[in-house]
Amino acid sequence: MIPADHPRYRSLVVRERLARCAGEKIVTLEGLIAHGRGEAFDYLIGERTSGSALQAEKIAAALLLLAKKPVISVNGNTAALAPGQIAALQDGSRAMVEVNLFHRTPERMERITRLLEEKGVRVAAGQAERLLPLSHDRALCLREGIYSADVVLVPLEDGDRCQALREMGKTVITIDLNPLSRTARTASLTIVDELTRALPNITRFCRELRPGEAEPLAGSLDNRNLLNRAMDEMKERLSHAMD
Amino acid sequence: MIPADHPRYRSLVVRERLARCAGEKIVTLEGLIAHGRGEAFDYLIGERTSGSALQAEKIAAALLLLAKKPVISVNGNTAALAPGQIAALQDGSRAMVEVNLFHRTPERMERITRLLEEKGVRVAAGQAERLLPLSHDRALCLREGIYSADVVLVPLEDGDRCQALREMGKTVITIDLNPLSRTARTASLTIVDELTRALPNITRFCRELRPGEAEPLAGSLDNRNLLNRAMDEMKERLSHAMD
Repeated sequence: MIPADHPRYRSLVVRERLARCAGEKIVTLEGLIAHGRGEAFDYLIGERTSGSALQAEKIAAALLLLAKKPVISVNGNTAALAPGQIAALQDGSRAMVEVNLFHRTPERMERITRLLEEKGVRVAAGQAERLLPLSHDRALCLREGIYSADVVLVPLEDGDRCQALREMGKTVITIDLNPLSRTARTASLTIVDELTRALPNITRFCRELRPGEAEPLAGSLDNRNLLNRAMDEMKERLSHAMD
Repeated sequence: MIPADHPRYRSLVVRERLARCAGEKIVTLEGLIAHGRGEAFDYLIGERTSGSALQAEKIAAALLLLAKKPVISVNGNTAALAPGQIAALQDGSRAMVEVNLFHRTPERMERITRLLEEKGVRVAAGQAERLLPLSHDRALCLREGIYSADVVLVPLEDGDRCQALREMGKTVITIDLNPLSRTARTASLTIVDELTRALPNITRFCRELRPGEAEPLAGSLDNRNLLNRAMDEMKERLSHAMD
Protein backbone atom coordinates (compact mmCIF):
# COMPACT_ATOMS: atom_id res chain seq x y z
CA MET A 1 0.00 0.00 0.00
CA ILE A 2 2.52 2.62 1.13
CA PRO A 3 5.35 3.04 -1.44
CA ALA A 4 8.73 2.20 0.10
CA ASP A 5 10.32 5.36 -1.32
CA HIS A 6 7.82 7.67 0.37
CA PRO A 7 9.79 10.18 2.50
CA ARG A 8 7.57 9.34 5.49
CA TYR A 9 7.52 5.58 4.79
CA ARG A 10 8.59 4.35 8.20
CA SER A 11 6.27 6.69 10.06
CA LEU A 12 3.33 5.77 7.82
CA VAL A 13 3.92 2.03 8.21
CA VAL A 14 4.02 2.42 11.97
CA ARG A 15 0.78 4.42 11.92
CA GLU A 16 -0.91 1.78 9.77
CA ARG A 17 0.20 -0.93 12.17
CA LEU A 18 -1.14 0.98 15.17
CA ALA A 19 -4.45 1.65 13.47
CA ARG A 20 -4.78 -2.07 12.70
CA CYS A 21 -3.99 -2.90 16.33
CA ALA A 22 -6.58 -0.33 17.44
CA GLY A 23 -9.12 -2.23 15.35
CA GLU A 24 -8.16 -5.35 17.32
CA LYS A 25 -8.42 -3.45 20.65
CA ILE A 26 -4.75 -4.09 21.39
CA VAL A 27 -4.14 -0.35 21.15
CA THR A 28 -6.67 2.05 22.68
CA LEU A 29 -7.89 5.27 21.06
CA GLU A 30 -6.01 7.14 23.80
CA GLY A 31 -2.96 5.08 22.79
CA LEU A 32 -3.26 6.43 19.24
CA ILE A 33 -3.32 10.02 20.51
CA ALA A 34 -0.31 9.28 22.73
CA HIS A 35 1.53 7.92 19.70
CA GLY A 36 0.86 11.18 17.89
CA ARG A 37 2.40 13.12 20.77
CA GLY A 38 5.47 10.93 20.47
CA GLU A 39 5.65 11.52 16.71
CA ALA A 40 5.79 15.26 17.26
CA PHE A 41 8.70 15.05 19.68
CA ASP A 42 10.45 12.51 17.46
CA TYR A 43 10.18 15.00 14.64
CA LEU A 44 11.88 17.57 16.87
CA ILE A 45 14.83 15.28 17.58
CA GLY A 46 15.15 14.56 13.85
CA GLU A 47 13.79 10.99 13.97
CA ARG A 48 17.18 9.56 14.87
CA THR A 49 18.92 8.37 18.00
CA SER A 50 20.81 11.31 19.44
CA GLY A 51 24.13 11.02 21.21
CA SER A 52 22.54 11.51 24.62
CA ALA A 53 19.87 8.89 23.86
CA LEU A 54 22.52 6.37 22.86
CA GLN A 55 24.32 7.03 26.12
CA ALA A 56 21.04 6.54 28.00
CA GLU A 57 20.49 3.24 26.16
CA LYS A 58 23.94 2.05 27.20
CA ILE A 59 23.27 2.94 30.82
CA ALA A 60 19.89 1.18 30.60
CA ALA A 61 21.65 -2.00 29.49
CA ALA A 62 24.07 -1.67 32.42
CA LEU A 63 21.20 -1.23 34.92
CA LEU A 64 19.38 -4.27 33.54
CA LEU A 65 22.53 -6.41 33.63
CA LEU A 66 23.30 -5.37 37.23
CA ALA A 67 19.73 -5.87 38.44
CA LYS A 68 18.84 -8.70 40.80
CA LYS A 69 15.34 -8.87 39.36
CA PRO A 70 14.77 -6.87 36.18
CA VAL A 71 11.23 -6.63 34.79
CA ILE A 72 10.02 -5.18 31.49
CA SER A 73 6.49 -3.76 31.79
CA VAL A 74 4.67 -3.95 28.46
CA ASN A 75 1.54 -1.98 27.51
CA GLY A 76 -0.65 -2.02 24.40
CA ASN A 77 1.37 0.41 22.27
CA THR A 78 4.63 -1.37 23.10
CA ALA A 79 3.16 -4.77 22.23
CA ALA A 80 1.78 -3.41 18.97
CA LEU A 81 4.98 -1.68 17.88
CA ALA A 82 7.77 -3.94 19.04
CA PRO A 83 6.80 -7.49 20.09
CA GLY A 84 9.86 -9.09 18.43
CA GLN A 85 12.19 -6.47 19.89
CA ILE A 86 10.81 -7.16 23.37
CA ALA A 87 11.58 -10.86 22.82
CA ALA A 88 15.15 -10.03 21.80
CA LEU A 89 15.64 -7.73 24.79
CA GLN A 90 14.27 -10.39 27.12
CA ASP A 91 16.89 -12.80 25.76
CA GLY A 92 19.67 -10.25 26.06
CA SER A 93 18.79 -9.03 29.53
CA ARG A 94 17.15 -12.14 31.06
CA ALA A 95 14.37 -9.81 32.32
CA MET A 96 10.89 -10.97 33.19
CA VAL A 97 8.17 -9.51 30.94
CA GLU A 98 4.88 -8.48 32.56
CA VAL A 99 1.88 -7.09 30.70
CA ASN A 100 0.60 -4.01 32.52
CA LEU A 101 -2.22 -1.97 31.01
CA PHE A 102 -3.64 1.41 31.86
CA HIS A 103 -6.99 0.45 30.30
CA ARG A 104 -7.08 -3.06 31.66
CA THR A 105 -9.65 -5.61 30.54
CA PRO A 106 -9.32 -9.40 30.53
CA GLU A 107 -9.79 -9.36 26.74
CA ARG A 108 -6.95 -6.90 26.15
CA MET A 109 -4.67 -8.73 28.60
CA GLU A 110 -5.25 -11.95 26.68
CA ARG A 111 -4.82 -10.49 23.20
CA ILE A 112 -1.64 -8.68 24.09
CA THR A 113 -0.21 -11.72 25.85
CA ARG A 114 -0.96 -13.83 22.78
CA LEU A 115 0.62 -11.28 20.41
CA LEU A 116 3.79 -11.22 22.51
CA GLU A 117 3.97 -15.00 22.85
CA GLU A 118 3.64 -15.41 19.08
CA LYS A 119 6.82 -13.37 18.76
CA GLY A 120 8.68 -15.48 21.29
CA VAL A 121 8.24 -13.45 24.48
CA ARG A 122 7.91 -15.46 27.68
CA VAL A 123 5.14 -13.54 29.42
CA ALA A 124 4.89 -13.79 33.22
CA ALA A 125 1.64 -15.41 34.25
CA GLY A 126 -0.20 -15.29 37.55
CA GLN A 127 -2.93 -13.51 39.46
CA ALA A 128 -2.43 -9.74 39.55
CA GLU A 129 -2.96 -8.10 42.96
CA ARG A 130 -3.49 -4.48 43.99
CA LEU A 131 0.04 -3.85 45.15
CA LEU A 132 0.97 -0.43 43.73
CA PRO A 133 0.06 2.76 45.64
CA LEU A 134 -2.52 3.79 43.02
CA SER A 135 -6.31 3.77 42.86
CA HIS A 136 -8.46 1.19 41.11
CA ASP A 137 -7.07 -1.28 38.62
CA ARG A 138 -3.98 0.79 38.03
CA ALA A 139 -2.66 -0.70 41.29
CA LEU A 140 -2.61 -4.18 39.78
CA CYS A 141 0.60 -6.06 39.18
CA LEU A 142 2.17 -9.43 39.83
CA ARG A 143 3.69 -10.04 43.27
CA GLU A 144 6.49 -12.05 41.70
CA GLY A 145 6.85 -9.53 38.87
CA ILE A 146 6.87 -5.73 39.02
CA TYR A 147 6.13 -5.70 42.76
CA SER A 148 9.36 -7.46 43.66
CA ALA A 149 11.53 -6.05 40.87
CA ASP A 150 14.50 -3.83 41.66
CA VAL A 151 14.82 -2.46 38.11
CA VAL A 152 11.77 -1.90 35.89
CA LEU A 153 11.89 -0.89 32.25
CA VAL A 154 8.57 0.76 31.46
CA PRO A 155 8.46 2.03 27.89
CA LEU A 156 5.73 4.61 27.25
CA GLU A 157 4.53 4.75 30.87
CA ASP A 158 2.14 7.27 32.38
CA GLY A 159 3.34 9.71 35.01
CA ASP A 160 1.36 8.41 37.98
CA ARG A 161 2.60 4.88 37.64
CA CYS A 162 6.16 5.94 37.06
CA GLN A 163 6.02 7.97 40.26
CA ALA A 164 4.41 5.12 42.22
CA LEU A 165 7.20 2.75 41.19
CA ARG A 166 9.83 5.28 42.16
CA GLU A 167 8.20 5.76 45.57
CA MET A 168 8.48 2.01 46.08
CA GLY A 169 12.24 2.46 45.77
CA LYS A 170 12.64 0.90 42.37
CA THR A 171 15.01 1.98 39.64
CA VAL A 172 12.70 2.98 36.80
CA ILE A 173 13.93 3.18 33.21
CA THR A 174 11.50 4.74 30.76
CA ILE A 175 11.48 5.37 27.02
CA ASP A 176 9.68 8.67 26.46
CA LEU A 177 10.08 11.07 23.55
CA ASN A 178 8.78 13.99 25.59
CA PRO A 179 11.61 15.18 27.84
CA LEU A 180 9.15 17.50 29.63
CA SER A 181 6.67 14.81 30.63
CA ARG A 182 6.12 13.88 34.24
CA THR A 183 7.27 10.35 33.42
CA ALA A 184 10.50 11.65 31.87
CA ARG A 185 11.23 13.80 34.91
CA THR A 186 10.25 11.21 37.51
CA ALA A 187 12.07 8.18 36.12
CA SER A 188 15.54 7.21 37.32
CA LEU A 189 16.67 7.05 33.68
CA THR A 190 14.81 8.48 30.69
CA ILE A 191 15.64 7.41 27.16
CA VAL A 192 14.42 10.19 24.85
CA ASP A 193 14.18 8.05 21.74
CA GLU A 194 11.61 6.26 19.65
CA LEU A 195 10.68 2.83 20.99
CA THR A 196 11.73 0.74 17.99
CA ARG A 197 15.09 2.50 17.75
CA ALA A 198 15.72 2.33 21.50
CA LEU A 199 14.96 -1.33 22.21
CA PRO A 200 17.46 -2.90 19.74
CA ASN A 201 20.15 -0.53 20.99
CA ILE A 202 19.58 -1.60 24.60
CA THR A 203 19.65 -5.25 23.52
CA ARG A 204 22.90 -4.74 21.63
CA PHE A 205 24.53 -3.08 24.64
CA CYS A 206 23.32 -5.93 26.88
CA ARG A 207 25.33 -8.28 24.64
CA GLU A 208 28.35 -6.03 24.10
CA LEU A 209 29.12 -4.68 27.57
CA ARG A 210 32.19 -6.38 28.99
CA PRO A 211 32.66 -7.44 32.62
CA GLY A 212 33.47 -4.38 34.69
CA GLU A 213 31.88 -1.92 32.27
CA ALA A 214 28.35 -2.01 33.69
CA GLU A 215 29.10 -0.66 37.16
CA PRO A 216 30.88 2.56 36.16
CA LEU A 217 28.20 3.18 33.54
CA ALA A 218 25.42 2.80 36.10
CA GLY A 219 27.34 5.06 38.44
CA SER A 220 27.58 7.76 35.77
CA LEU A 221 23.79 8.17 35.52
CA ASP A 222 22.73 11.82 35.65
CA ASN A 223 19.18 11.92 34.29
CA ARG A 224 18.80 15.65 34.55
CA ASN A 225 21.82 16.12 32.36
CA LEU A 226 20.52 13.60 29.82
CA LEU A 227 17.15 15.40 29.68
CA ASN A 228 18.82 18.77 29.27
CA ARG A 229 20.86 17.43 26.38
CA ALA A 230 17.70 16.08 24.73
CA MET A 231 16.03 19.47 25.07
CA ASP A 232 19.11 21.20 23.68
CA GLU A 233 18.88 18.98 20.61
CA MET A 234 15.23 19.95 20.13
CA LYS A 235 16.05 23.63 20.51
CA GLU A 236 18.80 23.23 17.94
CA ARG A 237 16.34 21.77 15.47
CA LEU A 238 13.86 24.59 16.08
CA SER A 239 16.67 27.08 15.52
CA HIS A 240 17.69 25.74 12.15
CA ALA A 241 14.26 24.72 10.88
CA MET A 242 13.81 27.76 8.67
CA ASP A 243 17.30 27.80 7.14
CA MET B 1 -16.47 11.31 34.40
CA ILE B 2 -13.42 13.59 34.32
CA PRO B 3 -13.28 15.80 37.45
CA ALA B 4 -13.42 19.51 36.53
CA ASP B 5 -10.47 20.32 38.81
CA HIS B 6 -8.14 17.87 37.09
CA PRO B 7 -5.04 19.78 35.94
CA ARG B 8 -5.44 18.30 32.45
CA TYR B 9 -9.26 18.68 32.40
CA ARG B 10 -9.59 20.53 29.11
CA SER B 11 -7.19 18.27 27.29
CA LEU B 12 -8.86 15.13 28.65
CA VAL B 13 -12.35 16.33 27.70
CA VAL B 14 -11.15 17.05 24.17
CA ARG B 15 -9.58 13.60 23.93
CA GLU B 16 -12.78 11.94 25.14
CA ARG B 17 -14.78 13.87 22.55
CA LEU B 18 -12.42 12.84 19.76
CA ALA B 19 -12.50 9.20 20.82
CA ARG B 20 -16.31 9.31 20.78
CA CYS B 21 -16.25 10.85 17.30
CA ALA B 22 -13.81 8.16 16.19
CA GLY B 23 -16.37 5.60 17.29
CA GLU B 24 -18.88 7.35 15.02
CA LYS B 25 -16.34 7.42 12.13
CA ILE B 26 -16.40 11.21 12.07
CA VAL B 27 -12.76 11.21 13.14
CA THR B 28 -10.37 8.67 11.59
CA LEU B 29 -7.73 6.71 13.49
CA GLU B 30 -5.12 8.77 11.62
CA GLY B 31 -7.01 11.85 12.84
CA LEU B 32 -6.48 10.72 16.44
CA ILE B 33 -2.74 10.37 15.86
CA ALA B 34 -2.66 13.80 14.23
CA HIS B 35 -4.43 15.23 17.27
CA GLY B 36 -1.72 13.79 19.47
CA ARG B 37 0.95 15.51 17.40
CA GLY B 38 -0.91 18.77 17.92
CA GLU B 39 -1.12 18.16 21.68
CA ALA B 40 2.65 17.85 21.87
CA PHE B 41 3.27 21.14 20.12
CA ASP B 42 0.52 22.82 22.14
CA TYR B 43 2.31 21.67 25.26
CA LEU B 44 5.47 23.35 23.97
CA ILE B 45 3.71 26.69 23.47
CA GLY B 46 2.26 26.43 26.98
CA GLU B 47 -1.34 25.63 25.92
CA ARG B 48 -2.19 29.31 25.49
CA THR B 49 -2.46 31.75 22.60
CA SER B 50 0.90 33.42 22.18
CA GLY B 51 1.36 37.02 21.12
CA SER B 52 2.41 36.03 17.62
CA ALA B 53 -0.60 33.68 17.29
CA LEU B 54 -2.98 36.44 18.32
CA GLN B 55 -1.45 38.69 15.69
CA ALA B 56 -1.87 35.91 13.10
CA GLU B 57 -5.53 35.53 14.12
CA LYS B 58 -6.09 39.25 13.64
CA ILE B 59 -4.51 39.12 10.18
CA ALA B 60 -6.64 36.06 9.36
CA ALA B 61 -9.78 38.05 10.18
CA ALA B 62 -8.56 40.87 7.94
CA LEU B 63 -7.90 38.48 5.03
CA LEU B 64 -11.35 36.90 5.41
CA LEU B 65 -13.07 40.30 5.55
CA LEU B 66 -11.20 41.54 2.46
CA ALA B 67 -11.82 38.36 0.45
CA LYS B 68 -14.15 38.34 -2.52
CA LYS B 69 -15.00 34.71 -1.89
CA PRO B 70 -13.81 33.28 1.42
CA VAL B 71 -14.25 29.56 2.05
CA ILE B 72 -13.68 27.56 5.25
CA SER B 73 -12.63 23.98 4.48
CA VAL B 74 -13.72 21.63 7.27
CA ASN B 75 -12.36 18.12 7.90
CA GLY B 76 -13.30 15.45 10.43
CA ASN B 77 -11.19 16.65 13.34
CA THR B 78 -12.38 20.25 12.90
CA ALA B 79 -16.02 19.16 12.78
CA ALA B 80 -15.55 17.02 15.88
CA LEU B 81 -13.77 19.67 17.91
CA ALA B 82 -15.42 22.94 16.95
CA PRO B 83 -18.74 22.73 15.07
CA GLY B 84 -20.31 25.63 16.99
CA GLN B 85 -17.20 27.76 16.58
CA ILE B 86 -17.27 27.16 12.82
CA ALA B 87 -20.90 28.37 12.80
CA ALA B 88 -19.92 31.53 14.68
CA LEU B 89 -16.98 32.20 12.35
CA GLN B 90 -19.23 31.69 9.34
CA ASP B 91 -21.57 34.34 10.73
CA GLY B 92 -18.74 36.73 11.51
CA SER B 93 -16.90 36.30 8.22
CA ARG B 94 -19.75 35.44 5.81
CA ALA B 95 -17.52 32.63 4.47
CA MET B 96 -18.83 29.57 2.70
CA VAL B 97 -18.20 26.30 4.57
CA GLU B 98 -17.22 23.25 2.52
CA VAL B 99 -16.59 19.79 3.94
CA ASN B 100 -13.36 18.41 2.51
CA LEU B 101 -12.01 15.10 3.76
CA PHE B 102 -8.70 13.37 3.29
CA HIS B 103 -10.32 9.98 3.91
CA ARG B 104 -13.46 10.65 1.93
CA THR B 105 -16.44 8.33 1.99
CA PRO B 106 -20.09 9.20 1.36
CA GLU B 107 -20.90 8.06 4.88
CA ARG B 108 -18.33 10.37 6.50
CA MET B 109 -19.34 13.29 4.29
CA GLU B 110 -22.93 12.86 5.41
CA ARG B 111 -22.23 12.42 9.12
CA ILE B 112 -19.93 15.42 9.25
CA THR B 113 -22.37 17.58 7.29
CA ARG B 114 -25.15 16.60 9.69
CA LEU B 115 -23.01 17.32 12.76
CA LEU B 116 -22.16 20.78 11.42
CA GLU B 117 -25.73 21.58 10.42
CA GLU B 118 -26.98 20.62 13.89
CA LYS B 119 -24.72 23.36 15.24
CA GLY B 120 -26.04 25.95 12.79
CA VAL B 121 -23.42 25.78 10.05
CA ARG B 122 -24.72 26.35 6.51
CA VAL B 123 -22.78 23.68 4.62
CA ALA B 124 -22.22 24.16 0.88
CA ALA B 125 -23.94 21.42 -1.11
CA GLY B 126 -23.33 20.21 -4.63
CA GLN B 127 -21.45 17.66 -6.66
CA ALA B 128 -17.73 17.60 -5.95
CA GLU B 129 -15.46 17.45 -9.00
CA ARG B 130 -11.77 16.59 -9.41
CA LEU B 131 -10.53 20.14 -9.68
CA LEU B 132 -7.43 20.29 -7.46
CA PRO B 133 -4.03 19.28 -8.87
CA LEU B 134 -3.86 16.15 -6.70
CA SER B 135 -4.30 12.45 -7.34
CA HIS B 136 -7.41 10.42 -6.59
CA ASP B 137 -10.22 11.67 -4.41
CA ARG B 138 -8.00 14.28 -2.80
CA ALA B 139 -8.60 16.37 -5.93
CA LEU B 140 -12.31 16.63 -5.15
CA CYS B 141 -13.90 19.95 -4.26
CA LEU B 142 -16.89 22.08 -5.22
CA ARG B 143 -16.57 24.26 -8.32
CA GLU B 144 -18.55 27.00 -6.59
CA GLY B 145 -16.67 26.45 -3.33
CA ILE B 146 -12.95 25.94 -2.75
CA TYR B 147 -12.19 25.90 -6.50
CA SER B 148 -13.37 29.46 -7.01
CA ALA B 149 -12.36 30.87 -3.60
CA ASP B 150 -9.70 33.56 -3.34
CA VAL B 151 -9.11 33.02 0.39
CA VAL B 152 -9.36 29.58 2.00
CA LEU B 153 -9.16 28.88 5.72
CA VAL B 154 -8.08 25.26 6.10
CA PRO B 155 -7.62 24.34 9.74
CA LEU B 156 -5.56 21.18 10.28
CA GLU B 157 -4.78 20.65 6.61
CA ASP B 158 -2.27 18.23 5.11
CA GLY B 159 0.80 19.51 3.31
CA ASP B 160 -0.05 18.31 -0.20
CA ARG B 161 -3.42 19.99 -0.30
CA CYS B 162 -2.12 23.20 1.19
CA GLN B 163 0.53 23.32 -1.52
CA ALA B 164 -1.99 22.54 -4.28
CA LEU B 165 -4.22 25.40 -3.15
CA ARG B 166 -1.26 27.77 -3.06
CA GLU B 167 -0.23 26.72 -6.57
CA MET B 168 -3.72 27.65 -7.72
CA GLY B 169 -2.94 31.18 -6.56
CA LYS B 170 -5.16 31.18 -3.49
CA THR B 171 -4.45 32.85 -0.19
CA VAL B 172 -4.33 29.92 2.25
CA ILE B 173 -4.78 30.44 5.98
CA THR B 174 -4.05 27.40 8.14
CA ILE B 175 -4.25 26.62 11.84
CA ASP B 176 -1.37 24.27 12.62
CA LEU B 177 0.38 23.77 15.95
CA ASN B 178 3.51 22.44 14.27
CA PRO B 179 5.46 25.43 12.93
CA LEU B 180 7.82 23.02 11.13
CA SER B 181 5.17 21.18 9.14
CA ARG B 182 4.98 21.46 5.39
CA THR B 183 1.50 22.94 5.75
CA ALA B 184 2.78 25.61 8.14
CA ARG B 185 5.60 26.54 5.81
CA THR B 186 3.54 26.46 2.61
CA ALA B 187 0.49 28.42 3.76
CA SER B 188 0.19 32.15 3.14
CA LEU B 189 -0.63 32.61 6.83
CA THR B 190 -0.09 30.06 9.60
CA ILE B 191 -1.79 30.37 12.95
CA VAL B 192 0.28 28.36 15.43
CA ASP B 193 -2.49 27.90 17.98
CA GLU B 194 -4.95 25.26 19.11
CA LEU B 195 -8.10 25.12 16.97
CA THR B 196 -10.66 25.90 19.67
CA ARG B 197 -8.65 28.86 20.93
CA ALA B 198 -7.92 30.19 17.44
CA LEU B 199 -11.41 30.11 15.91
CA PRO B 200 -13.20 32.33 18.49
CA ASN B 201 -10.33 34.82 18.31
CA ILE B 202 -10.65 35.08 14.52
CA THR B 203 -14.43 35.50 14.88
CA ARG B 204 -13.99 38.23 17.47
CA PHE B 205 -11.55 40.12 15.24
CA CYS B 206 -13.96 39.77 12.30
CA ARG B 207 -16.50 41.66 14.42
CA GLU B 208 -14.12 44.16 15.99
CA LEU B 209 -11.99 45.35 13.08
CA ARG B 210 -13.01 48.85 12.03
CA PRO B 211 -13.18 50.09 8.45
CA GLY B 212 -9.70 50.83 7.21
CA GLU B 213 -7.99 48.48 9.68
CA ALA B 214 -8.15 45.33 7.57
CA GLU B 215 -6.00 46.46 4.64
CA PRO B 216 -2.90 47.56 6.58
CA LEU B 217 -3.17 44.37 8.66
CA ALA B 218 -3.30 42.19 5.54
CA GLY B 219 -0.38 44.17 4.12
CA SER B 220 1.69 43.51 7.25
CA LEU B 221 1.63 39.73 6.77
CA ASP B 222 5.08 38.16 7.13
CA ASN B 223 4.50 34.46 7.71
CA ARG B 224 8.16 33.57 8.09
CA ASN B 225 8.45 36.05 10.93
CA LEU B 226 5.32 34.69 12.60
CA LEU B 227 6.67 31.12 12.36
CA ASN B 228 10.03 32.17 13.75
CA ARG B 229 8.33 33.83 16.70
CA ALA B 230 6.32 30.66 17.36
CA MET B 231 9.51 28.61 17.33
CA ASP B 232 11.22 31.07 19.64
CA GLU B 233 8.38 30.62 22.11
CA MET B 234 8.82 26.84 21.99
CA LYS B 235 12.57 27.17 22.50
CA GLU B 236 11.93 29.44 25.45
CA ARG B 237 9.73 26.79 27.04
CA LEU B 238 12.32 24.08 26.46
CA SER B 239 14.95 26.34 28.03
CA HIS B 240 13.05 26.88 31.26
CA ALA B 241 11.43 23.48 31.57
CA MET B 242 13.86 22.17 34.14
CA ASP B 243 13.97 25.26 36.38
